[in-house]
Amino acid sequence: MAEEAELMQKIVSLCKRRGFVFQSSEIYGGLKSAYDYGPMGVELKRNLMNEWWTAMVHKREDIVGIDASIIMHPQVWRSSGHLASFSDPLVDCHVCGERFRADKAPRVEAGAELTIALADKGRAKAALEKLEGMGHTLERSGKELKGAKAGDRGYACPNCGSPFMSEERAFNLMFRSSLGPVDPITSVIETVKRAAAEGVDDKAIRAQVEATLADSSVYLRPETAQAMFVQFLNVQQSTSAKVPFGIAQMGKSFRNEVTTEHFIFRSCEFEQMEMEFFCKPGEGPEYLEYWKEQRLAWWKSIGLKEENLRFRKHDDDELAHYSNGCFDVDYNFPWGWDELEGIASRTNYDLTAHMEGSGKKLHYFDPEATDPETGKKGWRYIPHVVEPAAGATRGVLAVLCDAYDEEPGDETGKGARTVLRLHPRLAPYKVGILPLVKKDGLPEIAREIAETFFAAGVNAKYDEQHAIGKRYARHDEIGTPYCLTVDNDTKEDGCVTIRYRDDRRQERIKIEAAVDVVRNALRES
Amino acid sequence: MAEEAELMQKIVSLCKRRGFVFQSSEIYGGLKSAYDYGPMGVELKRNLMNEWWTAMVHKREDIVGIDASIIMHPQVWRSSGHLASFSDPLVDCHVCGERFRADKAPRVEAGAELTIALADKGRAKAALEKLEGMGHTLERSGKELKGAKAGDRGYACPNCGSPFMSEERAFNLMFRSSLGPVDPITSVIETVKRAAAEGVDDKAIRAQVEATLADSSVYLRPETAQAMFVQFLNVQQSTSAKVPFGIAQMGKSFRNEVTTEHFIFRSCEFEQMEMEFFCKPGEGPEYLEYWKEQRLAWWKSIGLKEENLRFRKHDDDELAHYSNGCFDVDYNFPWGWDELEGIASRTNYDLTAHMEGSGKKLHYFDPEATDPETGKKGWRYIPHVVEPAAGATRGVLAVLCDAYDEEPGDETGKGARTVLRLHPRLAPYKVGILPLVKKDGLPEIAREIAETFFAAGVNAKYDEQHAIGKRYARHDEIGTPYCLTVDNDTKEDGCVTIRYRDDRRQERIKIEAAVDVVRNALRES
Repeated sequence: MAEEAELMQKIVSLCKRRGFVFQSSEIYGGLKSAYDYGPMGVELKRNLMNEWWTAMVHKREDIVGIDASIIMHPQVWRSSGHLASFSDPLVDCHVCGERFRADKAPRVEAGAELTIALADKGRAKAALEKLEGMGHTLERSGKELKGAKAGDRGYACPNCGSPFMSEERAFNLMFRSSLGPVDPITSVIETVKRAAAEGVDDKAIRAQVEATLADSSVYLRPETAQAMFVQFLNVQQSTSAKVPFGIAQMGKSFRNEVTTEHFIFRSCEFEQMEMEFFCKPGEGPEYLEYWKEQRLAWWKSIGLKEENLRFRKHDDDELAHYSNGCFDVDYNFPWGWDELEGIASRTNYDLTAHMEGSGKKLHYFDPEATDPETGKKGWRYIPHVVEPAAGATRGVLAVLCDAYDEEPGDETGKGARTVLRLHPRLAPYKVGILPLVKKDGLPEIAREIAETFFAAGVNAKYDEQHAIGKRYARHDEIGTPYCLTVDNDTKEDGCVTIRYRDDRRQERIKIEAAVDVVRNALRES
Repeated sequence: MAEEAELMQKIVSLCKRRGFVFQSSEIYGGLKSAYDYGPMGVELKRNLMNEWWTAMVHKREDIVGIDASIIMHPQVWRSSGHLASFSDPLVDCHVCGERFRADKAPRVEAGAELTIALADKGRAKAALEKLEGMGHTLERSGKELKGAKAGDRGYACPNCGSPFMSEERAFNLMFRSSLGPVDPITSVIETVKRAAAEGVDDKAIRAQVEATLADSSVYLRPETAQAMFVQFLNVQQSTSAKVPFGIAQMGKSFRNEVTTEHFIFRSCEFEQMEMEFFCKPGEGPEYLEYWKEQRLAWWKSIGLKEENLRFRKHDDDELAHYSNGCFDVDYNFPWGWDELEGIASRTNYDLTAHMEGSGKKLHYFDPEATDPETGKKGWRYIPHVVEPAAGATRGVLAVLCDAYDEEPGDETGKGARTVLRLHPRLAPYKVGILPLVKKDGLPEIAREIAETFFAAGVNAKYDEQHAIGKRYARHDEIGTPYCLTVDNDTKEDGCVTIRYRDDRRQERIKIEAAVDVVRNALRES
């Protein structure tokens, strides 16, 4: 456990040191689990997401992309169910005041004897008194209280272990904001003042306030998927797409998570890569199998090790009522197996929900298919959907964990290094171009070589700062798969030294061949 | 004027018909000026933004990228001034109820005689009475009221022309939301009830409510630029960057605009491409000139016509107090010249503001430079900044307007077409690959050709639906620069017909040469 935490710590440290990931607004003390991608991180994330786009959209005849707005019509979230049910059960501990998620709290058996542990004696005494006042008599021993019994909720406070807590309260995970020139705060104040003056009760005040806000409330999308359902017809008609076909989208989503954890793994702002594949009724289970295999193969294709990937089938009691099958692609993170992507067969639930919510028809007419009811040619139906929904932010973390490696060097520690064995297609720079020294015309030659790479569309980094050993170490840590060094011999023999990141092998190659050598190595990787 | 409105209408119509831009949440009646990019639009926007990234980040030694979170620490917006001053002056008309921006309202001279025009006689009668009650006696003639005099505010209601209106009220353009598990509405209700019970006045209630909200309030960024200042040191240190250098970012920004207009030109959610270039104190004006030329050249390089681009120098009274120079790159949109990009010399205003706000030092130490105060080598200073801030969403619209063309055909209208003359690097598809018919083995050959394009990294579209003329028309309208048609002769001579979008010229070329022909054409374009 300690070793795993240490590994995460090393990855976080490298991410900051080399410009992959910084804490957001760090100079202001940071913002709860928000992160910024630095110069290396933005390239890695772009490369990962571009790989997905190329594989899912460009190389396929049957999938097109969209890029929808983050703020959608609020009715979208009413129809999808996110306004009613997309919430966590929150509880306040009466003893220590901790607010926590009931479903993430430590489990305890009903009737079990519990020990409540406070931070110090003083707090334990105060808690004892408070509980006394609530009718619970416990015994104190130092900073611990004994004699409490677990109720039948099945969990205790994750902070102090107490079973004394408030009722569960639904907390919606969507970020709410207000659209338009009306100032909602002014309206809320007026509503509360009026209602209070009329002696209306709290519940009714809350309802009046919600009604006031409803006009202007909008939400940041908690997932990218809904846009594909809402725009199903526009996309299908503008591209003359025939079922089966898919609509893909990548982009930011937002969840006001109570529990954020594991660096960029679970944060309030994150990026997704989602695709909705529309098929004939009844064909969901078959495409679920197809997309399972496709998606696993893709994660492998960007370099994740096979032994770090697995499927996890959702149990029947985990499945949404409308779903007829769901699998996670899990990755073996330093803290254990956790979800990278979910692949779900969702029947026609989503399109039906938006048909009902909008009053618009979202059918597809297939002139070739036989209508099973009439037995005649020509079938109008609501397509079924299989959804592979991947986390791009999580993908970045998985890739970093998978690629991170330390070599101990020889017995004296000489040659020790940290190396990021990123798949070359994901590496921020494909090639570092390093003049051995900053004089004798070597920078000019190196810059000319860099130009040839740019012309070929290969991202190269001209890099002349610090001694060559230090530069190799830097490029190892940011995962640059190839470095080309220009030295004094280059002027005579027209050759440069290519150094391979993974085994530090060095070879002499002709300048004119450099682009091809790197391009071929990239292609074969 | 009518012609220009008609042109915009045609572009909007093509955007929907061909899948460039849809209204967001259209099946729910749409959301105020929010737009979704369809299958063609997402590719066009990605291509445009990738061009910017390649030119600004990849091909330059002195610029690196970042990708920061949209929700930053709220203190960022206090320091930057956005919380205090990033607001529009809003006014309500007492006659028709219109809420409008004072600074965008029609100008009138103080004392000028105004005519108030209502929608119908009934409303005019009601307005007459209402004004009477407010002490203004006017005369009615049909649905018009006469006899009103402009006050000294200098503007009238843009809807009815009345000079009778509320005081101006600042309206902040930032979207506010709430982070964390606290429900701000419950807190606001409690605060108002308590304050009202204590008989506190309205202004004090408002202040108490704002204090309650302050703990959890967060904002959607109204620009991407601030992250480059806030992360200046992390970026500089992790990349060992030496001044002068730049930090670039592309991404979504949000402004709760009161006036949205001109399709995607001004909307509440939009994308920006911004770069902060950090230089020595005093070098701002010189880099301002440099970046002006660079940025204009870039807009031309992606195909915008020279005659549709111009610089507009900001007058002294338009400049922010800290700025020592600012230019807009304007584009000649169908409604006239309007801003595409702003290039500003911002001195050290931003870094200084964040130093003061955060208490952290944001200096740069240059060991080579001479400190002008001490006269000694080694100068520690706050860098100055030149900022080219371009609109990606506006860029997409400019590109669409520039590329839109109609050919009338011959005197009978034969051969008439609409064609989108997009720069090939921006075109959603680089090449359409069309089997003449859906049989005789032609689809198989066409699909094989498509594969060779994918392998070469060129986005190709295999397309077999509808007659060949209809397919050419479709690819003209989405701007595909080249089409390759596979016909029955292909099986014998191994050739395909290449059709050029711009002049409809057709040539016969060998299949094996197709990738190179297209790639060379792309390179030369």
